[in-house]
Amino acid sequence: MSVEEVKEPQQQEPQQEAKEPEPAISYKAIVLTGFGGYDKLKVEIKKDLPTPKSGEILVRVKAAGLNFADLMARQGLYDRLPSSPPLIPGMECSGVVEVIGDDVTDRKVGDNVIVMNRAGLWSELVVIPVGHTFLMPDGMGFEEAAAIPVNYITAYMMIYDFANLRPNQSILVHMAAGVDIVLDPLGGADTTKGFNLLKPMGKIVLYGAANLLTGPKRNPLAIAKMWWNKFSINSLQLLHSNKAVCGYHLGYLEVDQIRDVVTKLLSLYKEGKIKPRVDSVWSFEQIGDAMKQMQERKNIGKVILVPEAKKTEN
Amino acid sequence: MSVEEVKEPQQQEPQQEAKEPEPAISYKAIVLTGFGGYDKLKVEIKKDLPTPKSGEILVRVKAAGLNFADLMARQGLYDRLPSSPPLIPGMECSGVVEVIGDDVTDRKVGDNVIVMNRAGLWSELVVIPVGHTFLMPDGMGFEEAAAIPVNYITAYMMIYDFANLRPNQSILVHMAAGVDIVLDPLGGADTTKGFNLLKPMGKIVLYGAANLLTGPKRNPLAIAKMWWNKFSINSLQLLHSNKAVCGYHLGYLEVDQIRDVVTKLLSLYKEGKIKPRVDSVWSFEQIGDAMKQMQERKNIGKVILVPEAKKTEN
Repeated sequence: MSVEEVKEPQQQEPQQEAKEPEPAISYKAIVLTGFGGYDKLKVEIKKDLPTPKSGEILVRVKAAGLNFADLMARQGLYDRLPSSPPLIPGMECSGVVEVIGDDVTDRKVGDNVIVMNRAGLWSELVVIPVGHTFLMPDGMGFEEAAAIPVNYITAYMMIYDFANLRPNQSILVHMAAGVDIVLDPLGGADTTKGFNLLKPMGKIVLYGAANLLTGPKRNPLAIAKMWWNKFSINSLQLLHSNKAVCGYHLGYLEVDQIRDVVTKLLSLYKEGKIKPRVDSVWSFEQIGDAMKQMQERKNIGKVILVPEAKKTEN
Repeated sequence: MSVEEVKEPQQQEPQQEAKEPEPAISYKAIVLTGFGGYDKLKVEIKKDLPTPKSGEILVRVKAAGLNFADLMARQGLYDRLPSSPPLIPGMECSGVVEVIGDDVTDRKVGDNVIVMNRAGLWSELVVIPVGHTFLMPDGMGFEEAAAIPVNYITAYMMIYDFANLRPNQSILVHMAAGVDIVLDPLGGADTTKGFNLLKPMGKIVLYGAANLLTGPKRNPLAIAKMWWNKFSINSLQLLHSNKAVCGYHLGYLEVDQIRDVVTKLLSLYKEGKIKPRVDSVWSFEQIGDAMKQMQERKNIGKVILVPEAKKTEN
């Protein structure tokens, strides 16, 4: 196990004797203390960081992405959390490799990486299997990098793997009459509207249940209404309409299943074909305000979290 | 209206005076006299052929395709017939243009064409809108030509438009564990089996209800069982599985909606990439035996009908 020295200067303690124990690492993380409103998220100082084991690396996080799934998770509406609160949320981040564990050959200290995980990434330091990381292309900023995984993987897989978008086809991102593709993040009764708008050979891709997010707190009435109105279709209706219904949920896919898509996206970035749009950048301490920005649909582009106490809005 | 002379020598009457009326045309057609068993199909001599109107052409049929939908239609199980019996079935044929109507500029007498229509093509002579015809590539035989439309359009659209087949993906034509694409012609309970076999991002394309065809006659029990077992799925099941369900039914598509696919298929034929397999060729008079060949699943390849009284089996 070759643990390399922590290089970050502002984090380093005064130089000690060689035989002395390593300086205790302390780092900030956003913790979900229970299901509920914005106040359930608190910044804590953590000291119990695990040492990277074989196949793992330690990453110093520079930026992390905020997603609708995180808002749903806070309310107890997201069924893909790895455990119950308290836990550190965060499904995507970017940062710098600080320590590499045994048997890690394709990453080195100082590499800039994008990280994906089911949770745990809203933290200054993260220990993660190397397979959950992707090398950032040269010239990509950390905030840009943190804006890519969830949104671009979702868009890419829905449009190219499911919807099979082709030249001269029209696409509707929720709603017009006669379209080839509908991407439906709303769920419930809106899905039926979207299905009815499709041309023959059209496809609707369901990818969320934004109608569940009616406010900052879990709304049992919205949940009941969603279940009552949930879209349902049978084989004969599908046969007679020449249409397709696809369900997409990144939370139910493993990293191995999206590796090729990320590789493709990073090469599209290098070719200048995609360029993530960052809406705003918030410090860990501003997590409540950052979530509110998204809850109230004020963001155009990605909402980004950074460990340092600063805030920039575009 | 420029009606050209009928060129077929064996059909021509002795030369008459110029002012005499044209010789009466008589031709054979297969007529569905009512819903039921094989005996409901009879060859009749017809004399009431309409003259091609503007935008129409008269085609002398050389070969016609037999489809599962024709077997279902005979039993009263196909809901896309244009009228009730008596009627002439037949959805695809090939032949030679004998007369062209006004305003037809892209076909000429003597052209070899493929014809598609909802019904009416199991006939020696057919009057059809020119938009329902496609020029046959050089070197394509009439029997091959009649074997292409329904089967190849269905396969192409299901595989490339819906299932989005890519290199290294596996395809299952009804079954194994973990596949990317299932093409399901059976319907009913088998659809659930197919859906469960799919990998994440997998697609199942439903394209028929072969389980309905249990014998030569309509089976009310099979119909009830089919309805009872019909596959049904809701948005949450789809979301959590990352799968797609597509319905395909050529009978519910208009010729305009499949024109580009036929053009693509004919160019694939010219490049030698597709080669229809003809199972057997039957005369119009043998329609019952031809249907039985298909009903009993004895055919490997296309079952073809020809107006002349001959039979060849491969």
